[in-house]
Amino acid sequence: MRKLEREAIYRDYIACLNARDWARLGQFVHDDVRHNGRPLGLDGYRAMLENDHAQIPDLHFQIKRLIADPQQVACRLRFDVTPRGEFLGLPVNGRRVTFCEHALYAFRDQKIHEVWSIIDKAAIEAQL
Amino acid sequence: MRKLEREAIYRDYIACLNARDWARLGQFVHDDVRHNGRPLGLDGYRAMLENDHAQIPDLHFQIKRLIADPQQVACRLRFDVTPRGEFLGLPVNGRRVTFCEHALYAFRDQKIHEVWSIIDKAAIEAQL
Repeated sequence: MRKLEREAIYRDYIACLNARDWARLGQFVHDDVRHNGRPLGLDGYRAMLENDHAQIPDLHFQIKRLIADPQQVACRLRFDVTPRGEFLGLPVNGRRVTFCEHALYAFRDQKIHEVWSIIDKAAIEAQL
Repeated sequence: MRKLEREAIYRDYIACLNARDWARLGQFVHDDVRHNGRPLGLDGYRAMLENDHAQIPDLHFQIKRLIADPQQVACRLRFDVTPRGEFLGLPVNGRRVTFCEHALYAFRDQKIHEVWSIIDKAAIEAQL
């Protein structure tokens, strides 16, 4: 698969997350997906995303930078959101915070098979 | 410039950092470089790196994942180090910590022109 196809599929994946279209998630995410080293599988990955949306009712993924090669994608994602209660152990409690996440993805069988994600916790702390 | 050349140059850049070979830094880093939105310039970027090495005497950059396209690079970097005193506002005080950084780079005139970096602060907190 070529770089531009990989980018297009990744943008579709993000649109799927923003639409909360969980029935389509398996089109993009491998049955044996791992997230930060944890073997979640597709069901566990969906549960993680549903939990994220429950904790952050206005969750919306905005792509700021996208880097793709035939087997991998890296993305700088931006969020402008109001998490309920604690978020990453911080007392956000419905305040509006903006922050970025850098996520790297490895593909297998044309689907996301491994994700490594780091959220800019220091940026959130600076806003509280 | 092609993807494989970009990867090779990036690996040379990391070797330059690990060798603390500051005289070569300008081969890789643009005079007008920006880091997380701050217009540091080459001198400011070098000063930032020298400060990092002073704060972390055993600083060593290990590439875990590398994603490159013709204009950009993304990297998952791993560190296994003993920062002196406070690090990212955390009382590390010479303890050994392992953590990752996800750094994204945009190139201009074949040099690093803009860097966006997020360090996994939560991983460090969990080790203290």
